[in-house]
Amino acid sequence: MSGPESSAVADAGAVVAGDWHEWLARRREEFETALSAHLATLKVTMGSHSRLPDAVLYSLNVGGKRLRPILVLESCRVCGGTSAAAMPAAIAIELVHTFSLIHDDLPAMDDDDLRRGQPANHKAFGEALAILAGDYLVTHAFTLLASESFDPQVAPKLINALGSATQWMIEGQAADIESEGRPPQQELVQYIHRHKTAALLEACCRLGALSAGASGDTISAVARYGRHLGLAFQIADDLLDDHGSESLVGKRLGKDGAASKQTYPAAFGVEESGVQARREVEAALQVLDAFGSRADRLRDLVRYVIQRDR
Amino acid sequence: MSGPESSAVADAGAVVAGDWHEWLARRREEFETALSAHLATLKVTMGSHSRLPDAVLYSLNVGGKRLRPILVLESCRVCGGTSAAAMPAAIAIELVHTFSLIHDDLPAMDDDDLRRGQPANHKAFGEALAILAGDYLVTHAFTLLASESFDPQVAPKLINALGSATQWMIEGQAADIESEGRPPQQELVQYIHRHKTAALLEACCRLGALSAGASGDTISAVARYGRHLGLAFQIADDLLDDHGSESLVGKRLGKDGAASKQTYPAAFGVEESGVQARREVEAALQVLDAFGSRADRLRDLVRYVIQRDR
Repeated sequence: MSGPESSAVADAGAVVAGDWHEWLARRREEFETALSAHLATLKVTMGSHSRLPDAVLYSLNVGGKRLRPILVLESCRVCGGTSAAAMPAAIAIELVHTFSLIHDDLPAMDDDDLRRGQPANHKAFGEALAILAGDYLVTHAFTLLASESFDPQVAPKLINALGSATQWMIEGQAADIESEGRPPQQELVQYIHRHKTAALLEACCRLGALSAGASGDTISAVARYGRHLGLAFQIADDLLDDHGSESLVGKRLGKDGAASKQTYPAAFGVEESGVQARREVEAALQVLDAFGSRADRLRDLVRYVIQRDR
Repeated sequence: MSGPESSAVADAGAVVAGDWHEWLARRREEFETALSAHLATLKVTMGSHSRLPDAVLYSLNVGGKRLRPILVLESCRVCGGTSAAAMPAAIAIELVHTFSLIHDDLPAMDDDDLRRGQPANHKAFGEALAILAGDYLVTHAFTLLASESFDPQVAPKLINALGSATQWMIEGQAADIESEGRPPQQELVQYIHRHKTAALLEACCRLGALSAGASGDTISAVARYGRHLGLAFQIADDLLDDHGSESLVGKRLGKDGAASKQTYPAAFGVEESGVQARREVEAALQVLDAFGSRADRLRDLVRYVIQRDR
């Protein structure tokens, strides 16, 4: 990726080092293994009376960077917990994220035919199954976190945090859809991004910290990091969508602009958007000061999300 | 209501008495009051950046018989609990039921313009908001049950039971949609009705019993009653859709037949469907024998659901 917006935000952090990519690949593999095991069980449970299991598994297996579950796992580790403790929450977050992508892509919503370079769920399975696959995924996320293997003291907190974030995400999507074609408005774009993107990234961190059994103050701090990370991520994404390359993003570009979406560059201009992204990056990094060197991977993640598409 | 199908099932129980209707009206009023209070708080929380709050409230306020929440409340009472203890579960169940109606009515699904004699959600607010309103309702059901005011020992069990039932319902809807236009098949229609309708009615009873802190055996018995009730209800509904009057049902009739849906009359014939409905009614009543006279209202509910539309 190159262009004014990438250099505008990239100088906020050092170039990500080689061992970072190895680390990221290992975390991703760890998550994929756990997810595959979970889905194998799920597929048996769902039976074969419709193509719903295929539709559900299709969008989960199309891949993606798995940024959100990795953020859950690492937030848990920073708070002294294990990957195993945070894995159900990591899977639940990815289920909710995948639900949102499937429904966002529907013709009645953003009408996207491609997702991560593959046909969107409704192009592969039809609209009815895509709606139902999304419904199933979001429902299963909560069912999973309420399963008996979980500590009953922690489970309601996880579910409440994930549920609140999901409600915010849906509210953000509604505001996004309804403001299409209306002139860019700064307060509105901030509302949309705070709800549609930042809320779920904040929830990743909160659920990770909760899974580690962290104290209230620690949970709040890690969640605050996630919120700033989420806003930096969304501003960078808006800038990328404005100027990025289609092969990198795996979806049609310039689409948000074409539909007169509320974006940071449209509401604030490219330069001011870069300034705001840097401000969020700095705020995210500042929260991590209290965690010392054990938060190094969370620092790397900040630099990573502003340099790459999700 | 008159016709061969109603008399076929109506003789399974005595005509419902006058005080029953008073009782039902009081339970309904009790639920409406609690729901209104909850929605007033929710509307404030949701803010005003889109019409999503209006879309969410619209379908909840269109009314309906509130059969499911009343079943939750009464199952709790039969197990020795109070209405207050079961009210969050009753509201959560109604949210999930309303979510399923909104998504089922969408053009990509059953394509119904009317629901309870009013424009369906997507006719009133458009498809995008209808999809999001359904998403919000199902998410809020789980968030609500995970709220801090709940006993953490009970909340995960409620969420797990409601989540499992909702997953079954979605699987049933997928099988229903995908089998449209295919010849009626007895095993398939049983699968669809077991999943699409009976699972949620079973969950009503299970959540009610859980809210009362009932023992495992009692919870299982009450849930079994709910399953038989749900199957009787769905068979009666199929028969009603075949022969009922449009003003009574508040939606277009003969639609299931026109779309070659998998229905009991289509798969088993009207007479055999009546036999099966009676069998489910008897099984439901038999479960209640162990509960003596305190289950009288649950007995009345059996007779009620086979005589009336939901």
